[in-house]
Amino acid sequence: MNEGLLIVVSAPSGCGKDTVIAKVMEKMKGDAFLSVSMTTRKMREGETDGVNYYFITTEEFKENIRNGEMLEYTCYGENFYGTPIAPVKKLLSEGKTVFLIIEVEGGENVKKVFPDAKKIFIVPPTLEVLEKRLRGRATDSDEAIKARMRIAEIELQRAAEYDYIVENDVLEDAVNDVMSIIRAEQLRINKMQNKLREVIKNA
Amino acid sequence: MNEGLLIVVSAPSGCGKDTVIAKVMEKMKGDAFLSVSMTTRKMREGETDGVNYYFITTEEFKENIRNGEMLEYTCYGENFYGTPIAPVKKLLSEGKTVFLIIEVEGGENVKKVFPDAKKIFIVPPTLEVLEKRLRGRATDSDEAIKARMRIAEIELQRAAEYDYIVENDVLEDAVNDVMSIIRAEQLRINKMQNKLREVIKNA
Repeated sequence: MNEGLLIVVSAPSGCGKDTVIAKVMEKMKGDAFLSVSMTTRKMREGETDGVNYYFITTEEFKENIRNGEMLEYTCYGENFYGTPIAPVKKLLSEGKTVFLIIEVEGGENVKKVFPDAKKIFIVPPTLEVLEKRLRGRATDSDEAIKARMRIAEIELQRAAEYDYIVENDVLEDAVNDVMSIIRAEQLRINKMQNKLREVIKNA
Repeated sequence: MNEGLLIVVSAPSGCGKDTVIAKVMEKMKGDAFLSVSMTTRKMREGETDGVNYYFITTEEFKENIRNGEMLEYTCYGENFYGTPIAPVKKLLSEGKTVFLIIEVEGGENVKKVFPDAKKIFIVPPTLEVLEKRLRGRATDSDEAIKARMRIAEIELQRAAEYDYIVENDVLEDAVNDVMSIIRAEQLRINKMQNKLREVIKNA
């Protein structure tokens, strides 16, 4: 079996990355998985260990970091959040497509551990549209929105570190663009060695 | 405007590369062009200069080769056939997608002149299927078919020099695969610089 695809997705807050990837996973059915993060925060009601997060202790998390078992991690308040390497490796070895939705900061280490990973950056049509969307949610204060916009500008400067740029203007177009990227990556020569062997096997 | 995409397509004889690319061009309407070859053979009835081929003299063809104006060329009998660089450059500068359907041999020089060119190799499901298709055409002698199969095997060994492999089993799937590759290539970071500038222009 050919190794699966690891797709890293980042975007400024409010660009709809979770919605885009949820739609793509719906289309790909059992062939695509979202990487489950590890956290040291308490499990909330309705959450399931191994589905929403892997819930572990701070000591275990620190041990994982020391052992090089984390692909990336970050700290909010006093809680750690991060991506364990082992489950991603297992899914890839089964030929699955794995999505990793992470902060721009977290993306740097991924290519060191998984050199074949492909990174997609989702952008809004314009910063004005992004600001309008954030205000439309009506969940954030004016100050919080201004802060988000400043962070968005900084994150957009780092889009050049990604392999692909997908604009999320019309959701369906963005979903189709991500599907095209995945299909094209599956057709790359390094992923098609088994197919080539199959073609010429009786030569 | 962003530079267009140059897509090199090769396949063993009988794999349906012309049909696949004709269907893709139909879907892309005015955005895609097939590179027109130059030849020194006589124009036939119904052919138009600049459409079927650019018809030039042997002296002009040799002059073009000397001046480094040919992307690739070959000689059948006493006639030269080849791809002039200038029209491809012009279409790419207009942001168009240009298809170049050429022999495996001809593909080598393309990346030297156009480093961003992407190469697609079209394969049959198996060599048995290819042979059945060639026999189904009923245009070739048994000897000619055997010769084509030997060449196909040699060409398939060189698929590793290509960026993408597309299987032409069901025509529609092959067409969609080529469309996915083109879309993904359009979304690559080096083709999206203008979009990125547009997003942050009022920041």
